[in-house]
Amino acid sequence: MTQAERDAAHLARCLELAAQVPGRISPNPRVGCVITDRRGRVLAEGAHRGPGTAHAEVAALEALRQKGRSARGATLYVNLEPCAHHGRTPPCAPAVAASGVARVVIGALDPVAGHGGGARQLRRAGVRVDVGVAADACRLLNRAFYGWAERGRPYFVLKAAMTLDGKIATATGQSRWISGAPARELGHRWRGELDAIAVGRGTVEADDPQLTLRLPGARIADPVRILLDSHAAVSPRARVFATPGALVACLRSAAPRRLAALRAVGAVPLLLPADRRGRISLPALARALGARGVTSVLVEGGAEVHASFLAARLADELRLVVAPLALGGQPGRSGPSWLGGRGVTQLARAPRFAPLAPPAVVGDDVLLTLRPLW
Amino acid sequence: MTQAERDAAHLARCLELAAQVPGRISPNPRVGCVITDRRGRVLAEGAHRGPGTAHAEVAALEALRQKGRSARGATLYVNLEPCAHHGRTPPCAPAVAASGVARVVIGALDPVAGHGGGARQLRRAGVRVDVGVAADACRLLNRAFYGWAERGRPYFVLKAAMTLDGKIATATGQSRWISGAPARELGHRWRGELDAIAVGRGTVEADDPQLTLRLPGARIADPVRILLDSHAAVSPRARVFATPGALVACLRSAAPRRLAALRAVGAVPLLLPADRRGRISLPALARALGARGVTSVLVEGGAEVHASFLAARLADELRLVVAPLALGGQPGRSGPSWLGGRGVTQLARAPRFAPLAPPAVVGDDVLLTLRPLW
Repeated sequence: MTQAERDAAHLARCLELAAQVPGRISPNPRVGCVITDRRGRVLAEGAHRGPGTAHAEVAALEALRQKGRSARGATLYVNLEPCAHHGRTPPCAPAVAASGVARVVIGALDPVAGHGGGARQLRRAGVRVDVGVAADACRLLNRAFYGWAERGRPYFVLKAAMTLDGKIATATGQSRWISGAPARELGHRWRGELDAIAVGRGTVEADDPQLTLRLPGARIADPVRILLDSHAAVSPRARVFATPGALVACLRSAAPRRLAALRAVGAVPLLLPADRRGRISLPALARALGARGVTSVLVEGGAEVHASFLAARLADELRLVVAPLALGGQPGRSGPSWLGGRGVTQLARAPRFAPLAPPAVVGDDVLLTLRPLW
Repeated sequence: MTQAERDAAHLARCLELAAQVPGRISPNPRVGCVITDRRGRVLAEGAHRGPGTAHAEVAALEALRQKGRSARGATLYVNLEPCAHHGRTPPCAPAVAASGVARVVIGALDPVAGHGGGARQLRRAGVRVDVGVAADACRLLNRAFYGWAERGRPYFVLKAAMTLDGKIATATGQSRWISGAPARELGHRWRGELDAIAVGRGTVEADDPQLTLRLPGARIADPVRILLDSHAAVSPRARVFATPGALVACLRSAAPRRLAALRAVGAVPLLLPADRRGRISLPALARALGARGVTSVLVEGGAEVHASFLAARLADELRLVVAPLALGGQPGRSGPSWLGGRGVTQLARAPRFAPLAPPAVVGDDVLLTLRPLW
């Protein structure tokens, strides 16, 4: 095994440790850390478990200390640049330098303005620093974090469960269930990983979902619930309002008595300007959510909501669960596909996508994870 | 490595050899053969290359002979039972027994009525015979052959190239190209492997396809071309008639002058009874094709043709190429999905499918290979 292969393997283990942490850790990124001796043997590992808890490097150094071992001369692997700033916890770069490690291998630099500089601090302290090992995989794991840090708006994931012929319901509106139990459980896991979940009024009226997290044994807070409803016309008796705090994104022109009725059940209206077509401006929604600290949103449809986000170029990722059944039906006499809107008539103008991961088998279903190519 | 693991590995190699033979070898199955010494070392290999050529066992024994080696005491692996009947070539079982092999490992028995008995012949000749190693994989490789042998009708493969939202064309009918070049080349390879290709009149009128095999360097005969056209109303100037011999499946009630016009360009009308809804009876078509020696058909659509085959339970396999683009559009104002027909309104009544292979990446596209669960 060459040094480069060993470095890549330890960085892959960092990503594995980072990915294993359950639930939501936003606004922080997923970070894992491995400390090895000079010959590449693993001495200690650590992972960041969320805001207010130790960063991965500090966790790994602490694990090493508890074993009664010293970091002197060791190599520390971490998928994100050690931080140089005081946040909820003290900065990591000085702690790493002080530990005596001889070399730090960093997957990717910190994209957050004002957070970087850790690599430079370490080099100044005499530590050998290598940056960019498995950088693509590091970016992939924290793609929502990078999207948020680089664009200042939430990372939007469009999710749909469709049949083999692209449909999300029958012509009479049946949609429960298209996907199988394992894919539905995965969907709930996503609700626990992303900050918020958004659906359109049509989905609330058709399915009356709770938009809560239902995972056996999970102790993860529910996501922020966002209902897209231009005229705030949804019934205050919808199940999404059973617990207070749901955001209702609507136009500033929405009727005051409707807003009052929603506030009365604990919902929070989010008053937004209209776009050119008189609908909620999604860029304005993205800014409003960003201002509330929402770093990622799982957009669960329906078809018109998905089409709006795609048209506004506010779709950062698609997660399509393809279930092994087909509904059939001629256009106009069949159920809706997951993507509505006006549709494109020229193939050359169709939105195109690239895989973010290979197709994955989830129970009887297949998960396609893609990003748009603008 | 245990004996069972060794057997499985040699049988897997038989399947690999069988699968590597290019093009169409129907009505014969794909068969590969490996001969090993007592310690499991490979002495010779062979594969069947099509009607009139040596069977795999004979090819492997001949390869062994050419190396100046004897089969005495050896083990012969083959994915299909050695034949016991005189066909275009002499039977294999006696030749295998005469070669002196001590043991024959067979993947699966021969399903063709009157072709079996090879295993019994070998046992009578004092050879140790084991049957059923990797039987599922053996059936999978030759699933069209088994389907044909067991049902006496062609094995029908429904193929479609669809967008991420299930569509095969835009609302204005654009369909070239939805899938990428590698998937289209794979489609041509399928045309070279299956006996026939079938499309509906709508597809001929929309795309005017040649239905020929266009693979660089391939020396494989074109498939039998089948056009489904109840009233024989297609234009005799369609490109599918550029070379004679295309079958036009139509109702017995089709206008004689239309049939005459088709015959005039070298097409062959196939006169069929009507089903209850006044359309071509697909079971009658299946029988007619079976009588003509057609063992497998690639059904390339369009949406109504696919729906008809699925409704008639004459869909043995789906091959869906999912391309990374989306067309969108509300029902009634969007392009057709790959599956038309009347559509199901109850999810519980939707046709369901099971994978025949894991999802495969083909260029930028994903191939889903499924079989219906009736």
